[in-house]
Amino acid sequence: MRASKYLFSTLKETPNDAQVVSHQLMLRAGMVRSLASGLYNWLPTGLRVLKKVEHIVRDEMNKSGAIEVEMPVVQPAELWQESQRWEQYGPELLRFSDRGQRDFVLGPTHEEVITDLVRREVTSYKQLPLNLYQIQTKFRDEVRPRFGVMRCREFLMKDAYSFHITKESLQETYNVMYQTYTNIFTRLGLDFRAVQADTGSIGGSVSHEFQVLAKSGEDDIVFSTESDFAANIELAEAVTLGERAAPTKMMELVDTPNAKTIDQLVSQFNLSVEKTVKTLIVKGANEENPLVALIIRGDHELNEIKAQKLPEVADPLTFADETEIRAKIVAGVGSLGPVNLNIPMIIDRSVAIMSDFHAGANIDGKHYFNINWDRDVVLPKIADLRNVVEGDPSPDGKGSLLIKRGIEVGHIFQLGTKYSEAMKATVQGEDGRPQTMIMGCYGIGVTRIVAAAIEQNHDENGIIWSTDAIAPFTVAIVPMNMHKSEVVQQFSENLYRTLLSQGVDVIFDDRKERAGVMFADMELIGVPHILVIGEKNLQAGQVEYKNRKTGEKQMISKENLLSFINSQIKI
Amino acid sequence: MRASKYLFSTLKETPNDAQVVSHQLMLRAGMVRSLASGLYNWLPTGLRVLKKVEHIVRDEMNKSGAIEVEMPVVQPAELWQESQRWEQYGPELLRFSDRGQRDFVLGPTHEEVITDLVRREVTSYKQLPLNLYQIQTKFRDEVRPRFGVMRCREFLMKDAYSFHITKESLQETYNVMYQTYTNIFTRLGLDFRAVQADTGSIGGSVSHEFQVLAKSGEDDIVFSTESDFAANIELAEAVTLGERAAPTKMMELVDTPNAKTIDQLVSQFNLSVEKTVKTLIVKGANEENPLVALIIRGDHELNEIKAQKLPEVADPLTFADETEIRAKIVAGVGSLGPVNLNIPMIIDRSVAIMSDFHAGANIDGKHYFNINWDRDVVLPKIADLRNVVEGDPSPDGKGSLLIKRGIEVGHIFQLGTKYSEAMKATVQGEDGRPQTMIMGCYGIGVTRIVAAAIEQNHDENGIIWSTDAIAPFTVAIVPMNMHKSEVVQQFSENLYRTLLSQGVDVIFDDRKERAGVMFADMELIGVPHILVIGEKNLQAGQVEYKNRKTGEKQMISKENLLSFINSQIKI
Repeated sequence: MRASKYLFSTLKETPNDAQVVSHQLMLRAGMVRSLASGLYNWLPTGLRVLKKVEHIVRDEMNKSGAIEVEMPVVQPAELWQESQRWEQYGPELLRFSDRGQRDFVLGPTHEEVITDLVRREVTSYKQLPLNLYQIQTKFRDEVRPRFGVMRCREFLMKDAYSFHITKESLQETYNVMYQTYTNIFTRLGLDFRAVQADTGSIGGSVSHEFQVLAKSGEDDIVFSTESDFAANIELAEAVTLGERAAPTKMMELVDTPNAKTIDQLVSQFNLSVEKTVKTLIVKGANEENPLVALIIRGDHELNEIKAQKLPEVADPLTFADETEIRAKIVAGVGSLGPVNLNIPMIIDRSVAIMSDFHAGANIDGKHYFNINWDRDVVLPKIADLRNVVEGDPSPDGKGSLLIKRGIEVGHIFQLGTKYSEAMKATVQGEDGRPQTMIMGCYGIGVTRIVAAAIEQNHDENGIIWSTDAIAPFTVAIVPMNMHKSEVVQQFSENLYRTLLSQGVDVIFDDRKERAGVMFADMELIGVPHILVIGEKNLQAGQVEYKNRKTGEKQMISKENLLSFINSQIKI
Repeated sequence: MRASKYLFSTLKETPNDAQVVSHQLMLRAGMVRSLASGLYNWLPTGLRVLKKVEHIVRDEMNKSGAIEVEMPVVQPAELWQESQRWEQYGPELLRFSDRGQRDFVLGPTHEEVITDLVRREVTSYKQLPLNLYQIQTKFRDEVRPRFGVMRCREFLMKDAYSFHITKESLQETYNVMYQTYTNIFTRLGLDFRAVQADTGSIGGSVSHEFQVLAKSGEDDIVFSTESDFAANIELAEAVTLGERAAPTKMMELVDTPNAKTIDQLVSQFNLSVEKTVKTLIVKGANEENPLVALIIRGDHELNEIKAQKLPEVADPLTFADETEIRAKIVAGVGSLGPVNLNIPMIIDRSVAIMSDFHAGANIDGKHYFNINWDRDVVLPKIADLRNVVEGDPSPDGKGSLLIKRGIEVGHIFQLGTKYSEAMKATVQGEDGRPQTMIMGCYGIGVTRIVAAAIEQNHDENGIIWSTDAIAPFTVAIVPMNMHKSEVVQQFSENLYRTLLSQGVDVIFDDRKERAGVMFADMELIGVPHILVIGEKNLQAGQVEYKNRKTGEKQMISKENLLSFINSQIKI
């Protein structure tokens, strides 16, 4: 590509509205431009990267034996009504009517459409297992699109759906997909972890997320220091060791008029935060118990996913408001606690081993200090309610936990029969009887990979691509004063044509710009191999080479240039 | 690809609901399945073809110097309001609101988005010309989706938009695109014509359609027998030679109570249809003349595009209904004519040279016979109002006209400043002053090409691909009784692996099916080169080859098989 015929659109200044570094760099490098909230135009430099990522994903999916199909972006509402997600899916599901007043959605995912397709096309167990995938535009009407293409509304996704007659067959394909995803992210050169994950609204039982490690990640992921254990914090079990000590002090009612929060309580009364508890009131699962109290240690965080899965608690998890609390408990938020509480309670495992602890007295402006279970209040139901913290024991008993931030780029699910049952997707089994198919589904956020790769690899000069295979161009030719030097021009032109003829994805910066501007652009967009062609060097028989990733510069003799460049390129 | 791991979904019977042969064959070959009206799932066989067509289009666009971008499917209403197409575009433009009640559309085309992008990214004439394209999903809410993917609602389109500072530069890029389209359709092996066309709702002046010739085409395209002239019938000028003869008979008022149509009039009174005229009443362009009469010869068809362009006629063309006609003219449809007509008339060129002709008398149940211009009624305004018919003189004066049916697969436009003016898309000109950019746009219906190729090339056994380059597979291996013959199995397996390793797109039919079933499937989906592996032939050192297109079969010696196959493949 000749830069003079290309649309660069690089920016010198970092745009104000971009918060994370990948968004800033994608704007500065001329990769994307916002069209509307959560909608992006992909400029040539961005699209080149996106297409290269897409190519790697497709290639590995094909190798895995999955077969590519393509389903429409626009889907009829009937299928969503059949699976009952028409009611269950929130406003992220964009719904509209066509000119004939028939209801449709913009597909956020394609479980319904593929299940409908397969129930019509596949009739016998002999045709299974089958793993169908597509790489296609998705739309999710995010309440708060942010971080550029990292969490946008329209994006490119690879979604695969597998169909089976037995759970063993599902596990087999699931394992193949786990390995395929590992291959994809390894080939993309990313530092990633596969972690156990919650299945959320997609449904199913077993599930793993593939997380690219990056400080700006929206997910907390949890590892063991000494084993392979890795999980999304949403799912990681909080293990509490130790036993409850015997009471040492009498419980007392204390006036705490200015202590509405744990922080205030601890600092005003010089308490240890590990000796306090928080009492959170949520809606109950049935009408008899409209409110339920969840009690965790003062320095811990409620894990909402865990809480939501409790049979006593309403799904989705909903916190009671001040009015609802006062109507039942009399006291308000800031003065709640287990003693004399008139609603069902569930306490975290770590709360169950506390003694001489402090909590609200269910009287406004008062707390009880030195509460002890059994002595002062009956020990309620115990559950795993909190997020793990660093240093917690690993749930597999090996080592302790570390926490890092991750960007979710892939997610694989064992769906089971959630969709096939609702949509009556059966095949004839070996015994001749209809049998409901068992399903898996496997997603990769192709668009998000581009942003994640940048979050993980960049410096003050711009983007560093994790592999040559996804850089917008592999080699840049930057001629100095080409428009004044015939020698530079001829050498550069010849080099450009030679590299092109060898199939190298090369950008030749033939713009009438200063060498500094051109060089900065090539570094900004992250061309991994940069050749600077100067008259003096040429006269000395040399060309300057810079490796974008290592930052190393070296002089290469003209004779060895092609073989050198070919040895540097790793695709 | 191993057929046993693939999703074939071929059908023996032709589905009832498919009217045209390409739709029938795409269903039978397992290429597509309907999801809802005008929405199709692409099964593996169909998608392989679609992707190969897409590849050729992309490759030729890149060679032309156009640069690929990607714009969202979902577009904000504001841009359509700015270009005023929000009001002008009919219900084919699908509109909806997002969760924040902001208006959006599903993009039927991207002039607004690209003009917005370029006005923000391009600031100087030095950055022009620029030709940006994408290959992307479009949605048009067709009133009557039909013929499978030929006229569906969601489809894949290649759309390019060029930006210029001068008309000469636009003409240059237009010529490059004309040549690029010619290259694309030639490379696709299609029998096509580039024809002059109307610019329609996209706007602009010069425009050409690329039409694939096929009997089922929805467009009539017109050629000269002796020159390069070719045009869509919408645009082709109807040339009328000859002069008006002198009157020979007196005009008479005739009772015609049972003659409501030209056919009835002609047969009941034994008239020559070329001596009759039809009087069509349409809405006028202004309030002073709410109705206008358009008069054409009895055997001719009104060309609505030509009529609509007349300054006297309302745009869009709207026919008056019986009530509106009776309110003004007293007589009704079936008895209208030029004599004593009390509204403005425009007559076709061929009507202007008629003499002794017959028309309604503007009295119910009566006609005037032997009307003559000037003598019986003042000669009104003359215009080109009709569709050409075969045998008409070519407008370029060379030869006469032929008419064929065509499927529009490409359309190129010189847009001019329609969008750039409305959206204030300017760059700094050479003189430092802002100058409105001049635009071209260039579309290819990638999806429709697949159907058009099938319409043009098929036989009773199924699809014949116009080029190996777009066949779902290039070579098929059909083993006979493989599951009983070790020799056949081993040879087939080895051949499959060898061809794969050579990069040949090969399908190995390893299903436990009869050879006849496998062979029929390969012919149905149109694999161009089919190898039948049988034990007897192998023992005689031979393999049977069939060429799908020519139908020729021949025996090839095992030794020469690879070189023979390679010599047959034309990609």
